[in-house]
Amino acid sequence: MSTNSILAPIQGELRKVEELLRESVRVDYAPLSSVFETLIGSGGKRLRPALAILSSKFHPANEDNVFTLAIATELVHAATLIHDDLIDKSSVRRGSPTISSRWSGTATVLAGDFLLARAADIAASIENFRVMKIFARTLMVICEGEIRQDFSGKHWPPNREEYYRHIESKTASLFTSSTECGAILSNCSEEEIAAMRSFGHNLGMAFQIVDDILDFTADERELGKPVGSDLRQGTFTLPVFYYIEQDPHAANISEFLSEDMDRLVNAIRTSPAIEASKTEARRFVKTAQDAIAIFPENEYKRVLINLSNYVVDRTL
Amino acid sequence: MSTNSILAPIQGELRKVEELLRESVRVDYAPLSSVFETLIGSGGKRLRPALAILSSKFHPANEDNVFTLAIATELVHAATLIHDDLIDKSSVRRGSPTISSRWSGTATVLAGDFLLARAADIAASIENFRVMKIFARTLMVICEGEIRQDFSGKHWPPNREEYYRHIESKTASLFTSSTECGAILSNCSEEEIAAMRSFGHNLGMAFQIVDDILDFTADERELGKPVGSDLRQGTFTLPVFYYIEQDPHAANISEFLSEDMDRLVNAIRTSPAIEASKTEARRFVKTAQDAIAIFPENEYKRVLINLSNYVVDRTL
Repeated sequence: MSTNSILAPIQGELRKVEELLRESVRVDYAPLSSVFETLIGSGGKRLRPALAILSSKFHPANEDNVFTLAIATELVHAATLIHDDLIDKSSVRRGSPTISSRWSGTATVLAGDFLLARAADIAASIENFRVMKIFARTLMVICEGEIRQDFSGKHWPPNREEYYRHIESKTASLFTSSTECGAILSNCSEEEIAAMRSFGHNLGMAFQIVDDILDFTADERELGKPVGSDLRQGTFTLPVFYYIEQDPHAANISEFLSEDMDRLVNAIRTSPAIEASKTEARRFVKTAQDAIAIFPENEYKRVLINLSNYVVDRTL
Repeated sequence: MSTNSILAPIQGELRKVEELLRESVRVDYAPLSSVFETLIGSGGKRLRPALAILSSKFHPANEDNVFTLAIATELVHAATLIHDDLIDKSSVRRGSPTISSRWSGTATVLAGDFLLARAADIAASIENFRVMKIFARTLMVICEGEIRQDFSGKHWPPNREEYYRHIESKTASLFTSSTECGAILSNCSEEEIAAMRSFGHNLGMAFQIVDDILDFTADERELGKPVGSDLRQGTFTLPVFYYIEQDPHAANISEFLSEDMDRLVNAIRTSPAIEASKTEARRFVKTAQDAIAIFPENEYKRVLINLSNYVVDRTL
């Protein structure tokens, strides 16, 4: 199942999200507007806006606020992608040159900052203190995670525990705030809010683990970057940790890293570490699905379940 | 009069600001905390927190909220200084090496972003929608101004009109939000809020103009960077525009810039353009002072007046 067919029940809402996103980055200075439109218009899956919308569907909600949340969340996501590319020095994302490869470092930074500021500006119009606090806190968690990575020297994270913490701040935190705030804006009970929060968190963890698996297993042309590029840049991900644990020769990290990188990436790619990582992602998805068991069966809950299955089954 | 003696009536509050600022950047990861403490602890004048506090003194206010505003404002200021140094590639600020000269570009960016996110996080606890909106909008105005500058090629701004717009977004916007939000948090009337807003705006404009004058006239050792460094980097400021207008030979910009830079800086420094710029700054200060005429004469109003006089009379 493609994301398009999974998300068909909210396709009207997602079209509106596209429109509002484009509006949200319109600025006085026309050349900049078009730059930003390109930035946010490059056709991501809009998973986070979809989660914000879906999680607000179980009780009557103020639609405008939900759209605002959806837009603000996607802007934060776009900003972090830009900064990530700068940190990773990636020159390609989804097959297109990254902003950081085309612009100066400064311009890249500022473009990301502008999107963050715009997100905060938009979020402020929701007029819900709880949502605004969660939103601001999420920004901080993301930034703190990025800084921690940047300050931690060449190899990061050092162990599996830190890996989980890292993907929590890098990815799961924004998934969490999407679903938690969607629940809050639709006047869910505290129990329901906690359930949606857990769904978002666990889905986000699974999503990032699968991303990290795909960095090893996906088709290089579809990936748009060399296979194993995380490891090549010194970022350790779940498959690496499983591989190290399973291979006695790999236990000595410095010896491990002194191996030929192509050979190492290939060894991990074809090792049981990939399946072990997938099992871990499935475990997170299962926890996510269990969390929303308290919600009634309906069209939107089905979409959430389908979406969570898609997250582990996707090939890109 | 030194800022210390001018600000004596709120010296207790400013001590608390120092304490809260340090607390505000404490993070889980200890090495980072100390980095941030150095960042915000480098002893600026704390003008923006002072303005937030002073502008809230005319009616009873929730003190906690005012302190929160003061801290958030200073964090935004600290973040913009870091990003400015990166954009300008300055290696020294106030005689100390800048963050951007000691860290990688990425770390610098992220440190600035973290402070912005922390500021948003702190501001969210004020629980006043109007203040939060003004605050978020100010972040955007600052970012948009920085981007506009970065995208505008080597020489910027192109004319006096754009110069005013530039210093409004770069400096006056944060002064404005300090005083406007201080007034809002102390339940001022709409007329009083508008007056404080105008005071902050005009004071901020004067402050930046004087900064731009000092870039030509201050002692190089006190300045901690070469005289005329704005112009050397392609940034045109008010003294430059006045000089160009007064000197018929300077009217042709490309010819003007082809001159020997040391000679040019010296010519501007000793020209009537400096006094003309100062007159302009004084005009802004006068407008600021007139704006708060509606407030009763008291200790705090005297501080605001003294502070605005200090802004034009200072030598650094």
